[in-house]
Amino acid sequence: MTFSFECLTQDNHTHARAGVIHTAHGDIPTPVFAPVGTQATVKTLTPDDLHNLGATLILANTYHLYLRPGPDLIADFGGLHHFMQWDGPILTDSGGFQVFSLEGLRDIDEDGVTFRSHLDGSKHRFTPERVVAIQEKLGADIIMAFDECPPPDDYTYNIEALDRTHRWAERCRQAQQRSDQALYGIVQGGIFADLRVQSAEFLTGLDFPGYAIGGLSVGESKADMHTMLDVLHPILPAHKPRYLMGVGSPEDLFECVARGIDQFDCVLPTRIARNGAVFTPNGRVNLRNARFATDKNPIDPDCTCYTCRTFSLAYLRHLIIAKETLALRLTTIHNLQFMLETMRRIRQSILDGNFAAYKNDFLHKYKAVAEENRGQRKR
Amino acid sequence: MTFSFECLTQDNHTHARAGVIHTAHGDIPTPVFAPVGTQATVKTLTPDDLHNLGATLILANTYHLYLRPGPDLIADFGGLHHFMQWDGPILTDSGGFQVFSLEGLRDIDEDGVTFRSHLDGSKHRFTPERVVAIQEKLGADIIMAFDECPPPDDYTYNIEALDRTHRWAERCRQAQQRSDQALYGIVQGGIFADLRVQSAEFLTGLDFPGYAIGGLSVGESKADMHTMLDVLHPILPAHKPRYLMGVGSPEDLFECVARGIDQFDCVLPTRIARNGAVFTPNGRVNLRNARFATDKNPIDPDCTCYTCRTFSLAYLRHLIIAKETLALRLTTIHNLQFMLETMRRIRQSILDGNFAAYKNDFLHKYKAVAEENRGQRKR
Repeated sequence: MTFSFECLTQDNHTHARAGVIHTAHGDIPTPVFAPVGTQATVKTLTPDDLHNLGATLILANTYHLYLRPGPDLIADFGGLHHFMQWDGPILTDSGGFQVFSLEGLRDIDEDGVTFRSHLDGSKHRFTPERVVAIQEKLGADIIMAFDECPPPDDYTYNIEALDRTHRWAERCRQAQQRSDQALYGIVQGGIFADLRVQSAEFLTGLDFPGYAIGGLSVGESKADMHTMLDVLHPILPAHKPRYLMGVGSPEDLFECVARGIDQFDCVLPTRIARNGAVFTPNGRVNLRNARFATDKNPIDPDCTCYTCRTFSLAYLRHLIIAKETLALRLTTIHNLQFMLETMRRIRQSILDGNFAAYKNDFLHKYKAVAEENRGQRKR
Repeated sequence: MTFSFECLTQDNHTHARAGVIHTAHGDIPTPVFAPVGTQATVKTLTPDDLHNLGATLILANTYHLYLRPGPDLIADFGGLHHFMQWDGPILTDSGGFQVFSLEGLRDIDEDGVTFRSHLDGSKHRFTPERVVAIQEKLGADIIMAFDECPPPDDYTYNIEALDRTHRWAERCRQAQQRSDQALYGIVQGGIFADLRVQSAEFLTGLDFPGYAIGGLSVGESKADMHTMLDVLHPILPAHKPRYLMGVGSPEDLFECVARGIDQFDCVLPTRIARNGAVFTPNGRVNLRNARFATDKNPIDPDCTCYTCRTFSLAYLRHLIIAKETLALRLTTIHNLQFMLETMRRIRQSILDGNFAAYKNDFLHKYKAVAEENRGQRKR
């Protein structure tokens, strides 16, 4: 087993911790934010760009890559790392969230899910065994169990789905053949503390090398999300990494690291970048705004990304208004730099013993967008 | 005057020559191919990318930049170089070709052209004086006279337009105030040898620092284009650079360098890249082709561009089929590398005295696309 997690420092005032996940493709300092590369590419960026930004883990989507270009083709290339030429750690999700999002196009039974492709309507079937086999072909360093992701506030549905998710987690564990990939179990249970506890206890019994928390960031409130993390903290084993799926915004990083989360992924920074919205230490701004039309300053004078070192707000706005695709790349570079650099500072503050102070300082300056988290996991 | 042209070598067998254009923003080894950056950006690329590709001159469009973001804004930034953060030589066209292409939306009179914006229908007017003033605000190293660009095979229209273009050329020369920009005259006259001769003789009398050949690559045959270049060669002064506007394809570089051309620009390599078509030593191929779906080779194993050093044909095809914008950037990088590297080799072969052999060798391998040149200047 090439995978291990090392906790270096535990914060004195919060549940925040700094550590390292060791993988066959390199170390991942934690806490970590993983940019999303749905179709084997973090949209608009090359692997060189990601290295320059200091990305240490990226996510790719099993559902999308299964449909196109297909797991056999990728396996024939020696796996995703070779296919996309990213030699650092990769995580693939299980496709569970995506197929459950195909409302009207999917049918769930005890054994798995039958669904139709959003691309061409063709019929497909995912079972726990099949999803593990696909992820073994894709060859990521961290792979995920096949789970069901019900609406977070439907108690009856969550009870039923949770039992199925647990049986599927066992089947995934059984199905795994490769020893160089870490299979994470996914805790479900919506916004219900009793179900989350039950899920964490069940999955902990299966002794996964890491635990994901799924079914959050899909419409529930931030308060509910935080409550669930608080409930789960004492149950999930401290010596295993904890991955909060599909989260988050800059402020989520602080709030959820404080609640013991080690791993994040989210389309938010890259998606809003493509809409012209960028992060600054004072909050999010949209570059389409006319007030930037003549502004000679960079997005953030203290940011060291290529975009901020090179271009004015006026030029970036011009590219956006003129519908130039270069704009997408430049805003994506900045937003990922912001997320990755913020996470590096969070980690350093934990190591230095002043995470709480940094958190207060950051959140005091950063004006969060109300409920920006809602639905952001939809990809 | 910071601008000068130095001819280093004249080929023994053809009219090809190798030289250097000196500008305030650096030297341009000639013959040179200029990538087109219509809206103050070579689509999908950063200035860093262009430097890495070895670009020594880029073109920007006066018509587009006049409408958006406007010459006053760019002047306020200290000119195009500062606005777009490209510190190498820049050429701006005069907008003549663009406004004449606005059929139904423009009205030509002796004094200038009234036209409506393709963006919002607003009314504008270009005169020779105004076009020079705009280009002085944009601040390119090489600027162009305001010309009329009639259909190449309409003799009567070409006679009438040519007189106007000549009067406008004189007015442009008069209107110029900056001494750090080289204003080129533009030879017109369609596919008619007598008109071309008349135009070249008239403009030569005005003693421009360089001469452009306009109105070609807009629908006429390659044979007609070559004939016009042959006609013009003995008339245009040998100690001034010659710029063939809106040309060309890889094979055009050879055929037109052989006819004494020093400068080229064309949207072809970048535009076809965005449609998935790439240049190879054997001709143009489209990466959408199913035969590339499993191909582990790069586009061209001998190419040194980032795309060829990094990615397989299968991965590039995947990005194109999946509509990932990264594909546009990777194919653009390759096609510009192909054009710029081919031009570097052409220049070296002239210096080494074996241009004719290199030309034969290249064209023997390269399967040209029939009439690919037609209409390629439409931007």
